[in-house]
Amino acid sequence: MIVAVDAMGGDYAPANPVAGAVKAAREEGIEIILVGDENAVSTELEKHEADGLPIQIVHASEVIEMREPTLTALRSKRDSSIRVCARLVKDGRAHGIVTAGHTGAAMVISKTVVGNIEGIKRPALAIPVPTPRSTHPAVFLDIGANVTCRSVHLVQFAIMGNVFARDILKVAEPRIGVLSNGEEATKGNELVRKTVDRLSRSNLNFIGHVEGRDLFNGNCDVIVTDGFTGNAVLKAAEGIAELAFSILKEEVLSNWVTKLAALMMRRSFKRLRDKLDYAEYGGALLFGLKDICVICHGRSNPKAIQNAIRTASEFFDLNINKEIQKGIQELQQQNIM
Amino acid sequence: MIVAVDAMGGDYAPANPVAGAVKAAREEGIEIILVGDENAVSTELEKHEADGLPIQIVHASEVIEMREPTLTALRSKRDSSIRVCARLVKDGRAHGIVTAGHTGAAMVISKTVVGNIEGIKRPALAIPVPTPRSTHPAVFLDIGANVTCRSVHLVQFAIMGNVFARDILKVAEPRIGVLSNGEEATKGNELVRKTVDRLSRSNLNFIGHVEGRDLFNGNCDVIVTDGFTGNAVLKAAEGIAELAFSILKEEVLSNWVTKLAALMMRRSFKRLRDKLDYAEYGGALLFGLKDICVICHGRSNPKAIQNAIRTASEFFDLNINKEIQKGIQELQQQNIM
Repeated sequence: MIVAVDAMGGDYAPANPVAGAVKAAREEGIEIILVGDENAVSTELEKHEADGLPIQIVHASEVIEMREPTLTALRSKRDSSIRVCARLVKDGRAHGIVTAGHTGAAMVISKTVVGNIEGIKRPALAIPVPTPRSTHPAVFLDIGANVTCRSVHLVQFAIMGNVFARDILKVAEPRIGVLSNGEEATKGNELVRKTVDRLSRSNLNFIGHVEGRDLFNGNCDVIVTDGFTGNAVLKAAEGIAELAFSILKEEVLSNWVTKLAALMMRRSFKRLRDKLDYAEYGGALLFGLKDICVICHGRSNPKAIQNAIRTASEFFDLNINKEIQKGIQELQQQNIM
Repeated sequence: MIVAVDAMGGDYAPANPVAGAVKAAREEGIEIILVGDENAVSTELEKHEADGLPIQIVHASEVIEMREPTLTALRSKRDSSIRVCARLVKDGRAHGIVTAGHTGAAMVISKTVVGNIEGIKRPALAIPVPTPRSTHPAVFLDIGANVTCRSVHLVQFAIMGNVFARDILKVAEPRIGVLSNGEEATKGNELVRKTVDRLSRSNLNFIGHVEGRDLFNGNCDVIVTDGFTGNAVLKAAEGIAELAFSILKEEVLSNWVTKLAALMMRRSFKRLRDKLDYAEYGGALLFGLKDICVICHGRSNPKAIQNAIRTASEFFDLNINKEIQKGIQELQQQNIM
């Protein structure tokens, strides 16, 4: 398995992508192609004892900046690091992509250069979210690849989420729910109702309507929604977690007793933050493409990049895309899609 | 100002609604009509030293249970406590309603019995959400009254939220945003784009697209969305806050050092919980009706009921509904609606 790593993507590029790639190559023996400005990347690589590790560099002359509008960036920068990553996959020189760069650009380029799995109408962006049961997170998708969806898309998201939960997270018969504004069967908008109708007829372990709180309480293993709602929900959850930490910080600093107490609880607070900062630790997965593309948070540290590279590698080893295709075919045979 | 309090609504009825009503009558001199089973309510009232307080009881023979499907409850129970509350308002015997009971029933009954403010197409359910600036919360609506919306509805929600932020929360020129999947003008679904188009032409202080995280970071004072998205977002935020507390609890109980530290920080944790448990403390406001209806969380304690009664009273005193009507008329004159 060879992973193309966008060495220029993210707030701390090329330092963090290169450091993460070195860790993945050294500790997990994964083959890496670092893609980006050859000088900058090799200078960065020299800071690590990387001789003998399975790491190559492939040059890309341009970088899509985080704040650039997606469409302009795609049109004007034909040799961006993320596009070169996608070309490497298309040409069979790599099997997956990891980037902490521009999410929109990564999505569109992956889709247009690499293409969808046969039968998949729309790739979706998925993220594992924390639950109280430490055994495994829940899978939430789509968190932003498709602003407007039809029920057939949500059904396909359910298949992709099911394979991820079952094969990567090792959940036996993942419980699949559709995000709605209430658990009752009478709730939901038209998209939800049509999706429920289709999924009820499938052989998936479909549990019907779920609420926003079911994302984080372990009641459900896979939650599907459209990319507009998914994005709003996820960012609001991030927002309130940040608010909680800012209130806690203010409280801690208010007097010496709380300062001392916080010192005594520092490891607990660290674990809490790690668990709630899920976006920074796993990366989001773009499902439904012929390759696998893991999109990390722009702030990703080397450990997060390493995790993302390992995820991409697991995807390849477990032949996840073949399983997704099988799931799609089954639903086609049942006339659900 | 006379508030009709649904004495039978909520998980701890009639105890908590009666206790909250007594506090509001005693401490704030607000006139109350307690609506519910006469025996149960008067027995409860006798537990308080309520003689001489401006509290009456009006009998209602039925209660809509929290888990009942809205439509069946509405059809079969013609003398429910919440319907009697609405009738009191309709007949001019009360000016507002406070209930911790069935949200769906309260919404539909208020709408059908009391009716909308002239020009308002759809009432909306709003909630104040916490922000880092302790001066005032942000107003988020619609959180569930209207599953499917058109842009004209979101524009009306903006007007209602604007009046609430300006007149009740005392925010000068509230910043109004539309919830979207990104801050850029190119983002959003069709509903968002049309709403942005209309609001940009209004004389409101409209700041355009906002993200989920802007609910809780103080960047925006009023955030409008459809009731489907609003409900999903709000419940997900509640869900992750609950998850944070459950992780924190586990961490605290893990050894004696953290137990001691938690004891030292107990007031801080209490303040954090109070701030994040916003749903339990303020209640949600059903805007756009000829009366005002405050819907409290089912778990509401007497303090929360008292707060809700005070909010209803402020609404009346500040003539909020007249301000909303004025706002609607202004936008009609500008041909925005």
